[in-house]
Amino acid sequence: MRLELQTWPKIEAYLARSKGILVPLGSTEQHGPDGLLGTDHLCPEAIARRLGERDGILVAPTIQIGMSQFHLDFPGTLSLRPSTLMSVVQDYIASLARTGFERIYFINGHGGNVAPARAAFQEYYATLSMAARDADVRVRCKLRSWWDLPRVDARRKALYGAGEGFHGTPSEIALTLAAHPASIAEFERAPPASHGRNDLIEHSGDNYFEAADYRRRFPDGRVISDSARATKAAGEELLELAVEDLADDFTRFLEFA
Amino acid sequence: MRLELQTWPKIEAYLARSKGILVPLGSTEQHGPDGLLGTDHLCPEAIARRLGERDGILVAPTIQIGMSQFHLDFPGTLSLRPSTLMSVVQDYIASLARTGFERIYFINGHGGNVAPARAAFQEYYATLSMAARDADVRVRCKLRSWWDLPRVDARRKALYGAGEGFHGTPSEIALTLAAHPASIAEFERAPPASHGRNDLIEHSGDNYFEAADYRRRFPDGRVISDSARATKAAGEELLELAVEDLADDFTRFLEFA
Amino acid sequence: MRLELQTWPKIEAYLARSKGILVPLGSTEQHGPDGLLGTDHLCPEAIARRLGERDGILVAPTIQIGMSQFHLDFPGTLSLRPSTLMSVVQDYIASLARTGFERIYFINGHGGNVAPARAAFQEYYATLSMAARDADVRVRCKLRSWWDLPRVDARRKALYGAGEGFHGTPSEIALTLAAHPASIAEFERAPPASHGRNDLIEHSGDNYFEAADYRRRFPDGRVISDSARATKAAGEELLELAVEDLADDFTRFLEFA
Amino acid sequence: MRLELQTWPKIEAYLARSKGILVPLGSTEQHGPDGLLGTDHLCPEAIARRLGERDGILVAPTIQIGMSQFHLDFPGTLSLRPSTLMSVVQDYIASLARTGFERIYFINGHGGNVAPARAAFQEYYATLSMAARDADVRVRCKLRSWWDLPRVDARRKALYGAGEGFHGTPSEIALTLAAHPASIAEFERAPPASHGRNDLIEHSGDNYFEAADYRRRFPDGRVISDSARATKAAGEELLELAVEDLADDFTRFLEFA
Amino acid sequence: MRLELQTWPKIEAYLARSKGILVPLGSTEQHGPDGLLGTDHLCPEAIARRLGERDGILVAPTIQIGMSQFHLDFPGTLSLRPSTLMSVVQDYIASLARTGFERIYFINGHGGNVAPARAAFQEYYATLSMAARDADVRVRCKLRSWWDLPRVDARRKALYGAGEGFHGTPSEIALTLAAHPASIAEFERAPPASHGRNDLIEHSGDNYFEAADYRRRFPDGRVISDSARATKAAGEELLELAVEDLADDFTRFLEFA
Amino acid sequence: MRLELQTWPKIEAYLARSKGILVPLGSTEQHGPDGLLGTDHLCPEAIARRLGERDGILVAPTIQIGMSQFHLDFPGTLSLRPSTLMSVVQDYIASLARTGFERIYFINGHGGNVAPARAAFQEYYATLSMAARDADVRVRCKLRSWWDLPRVDARRKALYGAGEGFHGTPSEIALTLAAHPASIAEFERAPPASHGRNDLIEHSGDNYFEAADYRRRFPDGRVISDSARATKAAGEELLELAVEDLADDFTRFLEFA
Repeated sequence: MRLELQTWPKIEAYLARSKGILVPLGSTEQHGPDGLLGTDHLCPEAIARRLGERDGILVAPTIQIGMSQFHLDFPGTLSLRPSTLMSVVQDYIASLARTGFERIYFINGHGGNVAPARAAFQEYYATLSMAARDADVRVRCKLRSWWDLPRVDARRKALYGAGEGFHGTPSEIALTLAAHPASIAEFERAPPASHGRNDLIEHSGDNYFEAADYRRRFPDGRVISDSARATKAAGEELLELAVEDLADDFTRFLEFA
Repeated sequence: MRLELQTWPKIEAYLARSKGILVPLGSTEQHGPDGLLGTDHLCPEAIARRLGERDGILVAPTIQIGMSQFHLDFPGTLSLRPSTLMSVVQDYIASLARTGFERIYFINGHGGNVAPARAAFQEYYATLSMAARDADVRVRCKLRSWWDLPRVDARRKALYGAGEGFHGTPSEIALTLAAHPASIAEFERAPPASHGRNDLIEHSGDNYFEAADYRRRFPDGRVISDSARATKAAGEELLELAVEDLADDFTRFLEFA
Repeated sequence: MRLELQTWPKIEAYLARSKGILVPLGSTEQHGPDGLLGTDHLCPEAIARRLGERDGILVAPTIQIGMSQFHLDFPGTLSLRPSTLMSVVQDYIASLARTGFERIYFINGHGGNVAPARAAFQEYYATLSMAARDADVRVRCKLRSWWDLPRVDARRKALYGAGEGFHGTPSEIALTLAAHPASIAEFERAPPASHGRNDLIEHSGDNYFEAADYRRRFPDGRVISDSARATKAAGEELLELAVEDLADDFTRFLEFA
Repeated sequence: MRLELQTWPKIEAYLARSKGILVPLGSTEQHGPDGLLGTDHLCPEAIARRLGERDGILVAPTIQIGMSQFHLDFPGTLSLRPSTLMSVVQDYIASLARTGFERIYFINGHGGNVAPARAAFQEYYATLSMAARDADVRVRCKLRSWWDLPRVDARRKALYGAGEGFHGTPSEIALTLAAHPASIAEFERAPPASHGRNDLIEHSGDNYFEAADYRRRFPDGRVISDSARATKAAGEELLELAVEDLADDFTRFLEFA
Repeated sequence: MRLELQTWPKIEAYLARSKGILVPLGSTEQHGPDGLLGTDHLCPEAIARRLGERDGILVAPTIQIGMSQFHLDFPGTLSLRPSTLMSVVQDYIASLARTGFERIYFINGHGGNVAPARAAFQEYYATLSMAARDADVRVRCKLRSWWDLPRVDARRKALYGAGEGFHGTPSEIALTLAAHPASIAEFERAPPASHGRNDLIEHSGDNYFEAADYRRRFPDGRVISDSARATKAAGEELLELAVEDLADDFTRFLEFA
Repeated sequence: MRLELQTWPKIEAYLARSKGILVPLGSTEQHGPDGLLGTDHLCPEAIARRLGERDGILVAPTIQIGMSQFHLDFPGTLSLRPSTLMSVVQDYIASLARTGFERIYFINGHGGNVAPARAAFQEYYATLSMAARDADVRVRCKLRSWWDLPRVDARRKALYGAGEGFHGTPSEIALTLAAHPASIAEFERAPPASHGRNDLIEHSGDNYFEAADYRRRFPDGRVISDSARATKAAGEELLELAVEDLADDFTRFLEFA
C-alpha cells in the first residue's frame, strides 16, 4: 500500500485498523562503477513496498536524499546537510502524528543517515520533554537498517564474506538487480576495489571525510566491496529475507505499548 | 534518464555534453475523495521522466513532500515546514553545483511550494552575494508549475472551464490517470464540491489557512473542482502537451548565458 | 493613523472597533540613476498612510529593508536574507496576533519580497497546523503588491506601456515624486536603459541572479524602464488610484470570515 | 542625508569621501499612557537625522522594531525575537560591508536591544574568526544608547532626578515632543507611576519578565517615570546635546584605525 | 594536561609536538537512586585526565551537559537539545581547527550523545564538502564511548553479566566510586531495578521516549542495572583498562594519515 | 553542593526547601602569558562552589566555554558562537524549569558572555510572551559578573588601580592562584602589557574585533593588565568578598516575588 497512490478516505479507513506506517529512508550517492546512484533508497523502498503489498501495511513516500556529504566529489551524488535531514525526519513524524499515526518505522538503507535520523527523533521528543510535565505522547519511532536485520545479515555474510566490504557492497547491488533489473543489466561488473589498510580501519565506524579527501582514498567510489559478485538471484533471496525480518520487527514494534 | 538508475560514471559522461537537469517538485497531500495523495508529485514526475526518456535529459529524484500545512487535518497528508523545504531545495542546488551542474530546472506540481522554492533560490544566491564581490557563480535555477506551461494551461481551461477549480482539479486527476492507471482505476468519481463564494475569493491567491480551518471550509478536500470529469485520455493529452512545453522551456533555459 | 505615533490606550480603543491593520512592506535598494534607494518602501508607505489618514485605519511601521540580494553590488542597497525577512514577518504576525489583531494586510512594494513573505505566512500557520488538532486560529494574513492593484495596474500600463519595464519603473519613480517631491526634484532624468533580449526574457519571472552577475547585465541598475517619463502629476494620480484600490481590497479582507 | 532618499550614484560618491554610516536602532512598544509607541525609534532617528543633515553624514533606514517581548501584553507593541533582531543587525552589517562601508555606528533608543545587537556584532565576527587565519576584516561596529551620551545623561538627570525612572521617561517623552510635536500634543499627561520597591530593584538591570507578568507589575506601562514633566523645550535641548555628543563620538569612531 | 590549567604559550609549545587532543563528552542526568547525576561526564573525564597526565596528552574542558531529554522528569537532569549539542561540538571542532589542532578525539560517556555528536561531525564536513572542490581539510574527528573500548567491554561483562543493564550500570557507578570516592561513599546501594520485558526489548537500541513516559516505565531511573554490585576496586580496575585502551586507540588515530 | 555529585533523590529533597540554583558561566580563552586558559570559568566556579558548600546552595555544572571569538588567534582558546551559547543557556533554563527550579542565578566570569546570555534570557521569555496571553511563568533568571559585585569591585580597584586593565587582570589571576595554586605556581610573571591609547579607548565598551586583528593589537593577549601583581593572598581575599557579595545578592533574588 503505497500512501501516495491512495486517497485520503482510504487512509482514514486504514487508521481505523492500524496506527503503524513504514518509511523507507535512503540516499542518492555514488555506489562505485557498477552500482546505481539510488541504491540506498531503492533497497529499503523495495523491501518496504513488497511487505506493504503482502501484508497491507502502509508505506510512506521514500526519503530519497540523505546525508551523503562525503560522496560529493562524485557526480550524481545529492546530499542533504545533517540538519536538513533532521528537519525532514521531524516533519514526517509531526505530520504523521498530527493525522493519527502512532508507530513510525523508518527502514533505512544508508549508514550516513543513522546519526541524523536518531538525532531527529531525539529533537522531536526533546521539544515535548522540555515543554510540559504531563504530555500524552503517543507516537513512537524506530530506525533499522535493512542489512542489520538478522536473516539478511547472516545471509549476506555467508554469501560474500570479506568481499561484502563497506560501500557498493555486492548485497546491495544484488538487491537492486532484483528490484530494478532493467536498469542495471547493462552495467559491466567492475573488479574488486582495493585500498590501504589504514583507510579500512578508519572507515569501519566513522565516515568523517570531506568529499575530496574521500575520493582520493577511494577512487572508484567503492570501499573494499567485490561488487561483481552480485547476482539477481541473490538479490531476490535477500529481498525475501528482508521482508520476513521486517515483518517480524514491525509486528513487535506495533505491539510495544 | 532517471539519475537514481544511473552510475556515477554515466553522470560524468552526461556532464560532458550537458550541464542541465530536471527536478520534479511536488507534495503528498489530500486531493479530495478521488484524487491520489501523491497527485502533486506524480504529475511533474511523469512529465519530467517522459521528456527525460524522449530527449536524454537527466531527471533527479522527485521531491515528493512539499509545503502542505493547510491539508494536515486530512490523513495521508505529509508536509514539510517552508523552512525545511527551503533547506532541501538549497541542498539540491548546492549538491548539483558542487558536482558540475549549471542549469537546474524545477518542474513543480504544487502551488504551496512556489514561495518556499523561490525563497530557497534567493537564500542560495544571498549567501553568495553577501560574501564576496567577485564571485563567479555559474549555477542558475528556474521554477515552473506544469499547469502554467502555455499549451497545458490553454487546454485544461478549454477542457474544464470553471470546473477546473483550485485543488483536486480534473486536469491533475486526469494526468495521474494517465501516469498511474492501475492505482486510480478503482476510485469512484465524486460529485463536484461546492463552497461559499467567500471561500473561493479568498482561496484564489493566498492559501493561508490553518489546517483545521481549511477542513471546515472544504470538507471533502477539493476546492470547487469537478474532478469526476477527469479521463485518462485527457490525461494523456495533457501529459504530451506538458512534455512539449517543458522541452521548449528547458531548451531556452539551457541557452540562457 | 500611524501606529508609532499613538499611545497604547489609543490602540486598545482602536481594537474595540477594528481588528485590521496595514503593514507597508518594501526594500531599500538601488533604483537606477534617478530612482530613490527607498522607492520600494516609500511607495507602499505613502499609499497605506494616505488611506490610513483618510479612513482611520491603523498603519504599522514600514518594513523598510527587504530581500534585495541581487542589488548588492550597487552601494546603498541593504538586504535581508530571505530567512531573516521571514523571521521579521513572522514576528510582526505573532506580535499583532498576541495583542488582539486578526486581519493583517501587507501592502508590498518589492517583487523580491513576495516569496519570503508568503513563505513566512506559511511557516506561521505550519507551526499551528502541526502542533494541535483543535487550534482556534483567528489571525489571517494577506499580501498585495501595489502595482498589481487593478486600477493602478491598468493606469501604469496605459501611461508607460513597454517603457514601464521591470525595475526603476516610471510608475514607481512617479509615485515617489508625489510622495517625496523635495528629495527627488534635483535628480536628473536618465535615458532609457537598454539590454540584450536574453536578459529581459529571463528577468520576467525569476530574479535569481547573484549580485555581481546582475550588475554586469544591468549596469545602471534599471531593467528596461524608461524612468525619465515619470512625473509628479502621474505619481499623484497613481497614488490616488492605489488608495482607492487598497481601500476596496482591505474592506473585503476585513469582511472575510 | 537619509540613505533612502538618495540614488545609488550619490552613495557611490559619498563612499569616496567617507566609509561611515549611522544606523538608528529602536523599538515600537508601549510607553505608558502618554508616550508614543514609537518613542524608542523616533528618538535615535531624530538625533541621527539632525546630525546627518548638519554634517553630511549618511543615515540608514531606522530599525523600528526591536526586542520588546516584555511589553507584548500592551496593544500596539511589536517585538522581534532576539534571534530575529540579531539576524537583522547582521544583515545590515553584511550589506553595508559588501558595498564598501567600514564604520557602522548604531545609535540605539531601547535598552532591550543592547544584548541582541551586541550578540549580533559578535556573531558577525565569530563567523570570520572561526573561518580563516588571515582574514582582512575592515568593517567595525559600535553601539551607543542616546541617553548614555555624556551631555545627555548629565542633563536628563539634572532635569528629572529620580522622576526620570526607567521606562516612559520624561526625557524620552520630551525628545519626541520636540521631534513630533503634532502627534503628541493632544495626549494628556499622566500622573507619575508608582510601584513596589521590589519591582524597582529587580528592574534596574535585567528586564527579564514575561509579558503578562510585566503588565501585572506595571499596569500603566511606565516604570516609575514622572512622564508628565516632559516639555518640548527640554526635548529640544536634549536633542541638541545628543547631536553634539554623537558628532564627537562618531568622529572618534571614524578615526579609530 | 588539562587545557584550562595551561597558558596559551604552553599550548603553542604543545602544538609544535602534537596536533591531537582529547575531549571528554558526557551528560548530567539522573542515574538511579545511587548513581551520581554527573556519572556520564565524570567517567570519560577521569579516563581522559588520567591518560593525559600519564602521557602528556592535552585534554579539553569536558562537555558536561549532553542529550538527556528522556531523563527530564527526574530533578537534577540538565539536557541540551540535539541541535544545541551539535552546535557545541561543531564549535569545539572549529575552534580547535582554527588554532592548529588536526586530530580531535571525543571520548564519550553517554549513549544519547552518539547520534548528535556524529551528526555534528557530518555537519562540519558537509559545509566544507558542499562549498568547494579543492578544500584542504586537515582536521579529523573520532568518537568512542568508553564502555565500548575492548578491554573495558570484556571486563564489565565479566564482572556484571546481565546485571550490567543499560542505565545506572554497576560499571559506571564503580568508575565514579574510583574517581570521586568522597561524593558517593555516603549513598546507600539500591536493590536491582526490574521492568517488564517489553521495555527491555525496546530500550536496547533506541532511547526514544518522552520524559514522563520514561519515568513511568523506569520509576527509579535505572534500566535493569544491579548498581549495588559496584565497588571502588572494580572502578579502579575499569579506569586503568580504559586508560590503556584509550591510549592505544588515540595513538592509532594520530597515526592515521 | 555540586549538582553533578548528587543523586536525583537528593535534588528532589533540595527542591522541597529551595527553588534556587547557581550556574557558573565562563569561558576558555587565552589570558596572556601568565594567566590560565580557564581563568574566566574557574573564577565564578570557585566562588559559586565555596558559597554552595558554605550555605548548602546547589551549584550546576559550570558552562566552561563561552563567547571568545576574538581570542581565536591564540592557541588554547575555545569559543562558542553567540547563537550556540544562547542555545546552551536556554537549554539550561528549560531543563531547570522543567524539573522544578524557579530562580536561576548565572554567576559570570567573562565579559563576552553578557550579551549572549542576556539575549538568551530574552529569547526564552519571548517564546512564552508571544505564544499565549495567560502564561503562568515562574522561572526567573539573573546574570551577574563576579567583578561587578560591590565589595569585589571596590577591593580590586583599590588593589590594582589602572593596572587592573581589561583582560588577564591581576584580580582574576589572583583568584585563580587562590583556587588552583598548584597549576599556576610554575608560571613566571610577565611584565605589564602596553598598547596604543587608541586600542584602549576602543576596548572599553565593545570587544568587536576579529581574532587576527585582536592579536595584532594585543600581541601577548593581555589588555593593559599588570598581571604580575597578582598574589594568592589577594586572590583569597577577593574570593571571600565575592562569596559574601554573592550570598547577599542570591538571597535577594530568592526573595523577589
